[in-house]
Amino acid sequence: MNESPELRQDVVSGDWVLIAPGRSKRPHAFALKAQRSKAPKSTCPFEDLQKSGNGDPLLWYSKNGKEDGELRRDWVLQVVKNKYPVVAGHEGVCPMPVPYGSYRKMAGIGFHEVIIPRSHTKFLSAMTAREAERIISAYQERILYHTKEKCLKYVFVFHNNGESAGASIYHPHSQIVALPIIPPDVYRSLHGAHRYQQEHDACVHCRLIAWELEKNERVIYKNESFIVVAPFASHVAFEVRIFPLNHDARFERITKGDRLLFAEALTNTLRALKKVLKDPSFNYFIHTAPVGDGEYDYYHWHLELLPKTSHLAGVELGTGVEVVTMPPEDAATYLREAI
Amino acid sequence: MNESPELRQDVVSGDWVLIAPGRSKRPHAFALKAQRSKAPKSTCPFEDLQKSGNGDPLLWYSKNGKEDGELRRDWVLQVVKNKYPVVAGHEGVCPMPVPYGSYRKMAGIGFHEVIIPRSHTKFLSAMTAREAERIISAYQERILYHTKEKCLKYVFVFHNNGESAGASIYHPHSQIVALPIIPPDVYRSLHGAHRYQQEHDACVHCRLIAWELEKNERVIYKNESFIVVAPFASHVAFEVRIFPLNHDARFERITKGDRLLFAEALTNTLRALKKVLKDPSFNYFIHTAPVGDGEYDYYHWHLELLPKTSHLAGVELGTGVEVVTMPPEDAATYLREAI
Repeated sequence: MNESPELRQDVVSGDWVLIAPGRSKRPHAFALKAQRSKAPKSTCPFEDLQKSGNGDPLLWYSKNGKEDGELRRDWVLQVVKNKYPVVAGHEGVCPMPVPYGSYRKMAGIGFHEVIIPRSHTKFLSAMTAREAERIISAYQERILYHTKEKCLKYVFVFHNNGESAGASIYHPHSQIVALPIIPPDVYRSLHGAHRYQQEHDACVHCRLIAWELEKNERVIYKNESFIVVAPFASHVAFEVRIFPLNHDARFERITKGDRLLFAEALTNTLRALKKVLKDPSFNYFIHTAPVGDGEYDYYHWHLELLPKTSHLAGVELGTGVEVVTMPPEDAATYLREAI
Repeated sequence: MNESPELRQDVVSGDWVLIAPGRSKRPHAFALKAQRSKAPKSTCPFEDLQKSGNGDPLLWYSKNGKEDGELRRDWVLQVVKNKYPVVAGHEGVCPMPVPYGSYRKMAGIGFHEVIIPRSHTKFLSAMTAREAERIISAYQERILYHTKEKCLKYVFVFHNNGESAGASIYHPHSQIVALPIIPPDVYRSLHGAHRYQQEHDACVHCRLIAWELEKNERVIYKNESFIVVAPFASHVAFEVRIFPLNHDARFERITKGDRLLFAEALTNTLRALKKVLKDPSFNYFIHTAPVGDGEYDYYHWHLELLPKTSHLAGVELGTGVEVVTMPPEDAATYLREAI
């Protein structure tokens, strides 16, 4: 793009972003570094999870597979309850929203879990696809588990990297939160995809993927099953999304072969981001269809990755118009060259 | 509220927030401090605006009133163009959104201005109501000016305090941005207020104000014309909103007397926040009806103030459900006692 500011409207959410290329900056000036107060292994609460009072894991893997061997000696990944959950446990009848004045409220129930690979220092960007595939597999197993729970409406997986992205513990980990509502951003995304389906008799994300492949300006990486792009209406500099090439509403239906290809796409992307942005803070999360029997065939699951850039300020907070100073076309070029 | 997490749905936006009281923390642990690299006055680009290459101000006040006296000697407030605007200037025909693939885009035109009181070190929390009233008056005059511009759809005022809230220059200042679109958050807010009006034949904000006064749990301050509350469905700890008690869709219709009362409500609130949160970073912005002849009588203008709390992490970014660890009822108690 040229250097004039451009407003771009996301076709799914309807949101506008403002792509306003700044004075020329080196790419690594765009992201906050992944500051990490490196806690020594000896005091890490994730080092010996059971000794740290976590009880039995909800799921664990050894090198040889699922729950094979002696936990304390052999584990390579564990999923445990978050000791400081943002939601409460529940039993019996499901809570429902109740009016309160003009508002509605309901009990904040659900699940909050932590997915912990064994190594204290090996971040996802340093993992082989095969190592990362285990983490993807744990995401899948826990989502599948929670979709059996009748009080829950949405399960989502996220990963915070670096303190300024909210990672309060040095040891790499991901989290899963299950909620009794469909969250607002997910709702809007579903709504936009549904509307597009009704108007065009097509999946909006399939259309966008085909268009990105044709334009080839914002594609960062592609393998047999996945494509990595810098979205046309990016919300932050160096935003990245990973889509399965084949249409599917649900991440948790991913096959074993695709888990490995997804892990390959993710680790390659993280390595490129680390190189170009010099170890940025970032968050990623998986958007999959809500729990339950609703028809969500119009949806197309994907992973969104947001590097942590400069602090959100008045424009963004006051209007929801995000000001992005690195055009996604340029971000894609940097990242593509780094892979 | 008790200590169990509670989901609360905003009646206007439809958004859910999760009020999840954390382990007991002192209130000042909730906000990021307003770090400021104190630039010496001698190198401040706002000290002698014309010498810093700003040309004539768009508006200025002296102690005696509007543009009275000799600019370089007598100014107490100036409004100038932002030297690094996020939008471009324009002439002639107004830009329109054009399709681009499945997306839409348009030229990012508009205005971006800076409102600068003279003192290098006197922040709003240290101002008298009379001093702050000048700033409110400048907001009003510039919004009124831009509403005459036919290509613009929305004008908004915001103020960033502290580096982590995006204030890159030490010298206190506010900003105005005018855009050729109605921003997404404003659109949702208008839409929610309109829907409520249609369903209940009443202004949603008038109803909420009456309810807050009746409950008296979240009211922080009140004078003849304004009320300051911690919203029931707060998006961050210590969020504060200031509403005019009398229904009006447009901030820019504020009377001179109400400007002073608004300034009094704002400065008292900022002083309480400074005391309770120990000089927090924050952003505030004014939500007023869009430019133009549309009927927005169902809207009710207000100021939103968001202290900068811990970094947004995966839950918020991935779902739009904000996790708030200080119930607004408790925040209101702290702030009320500090006023």
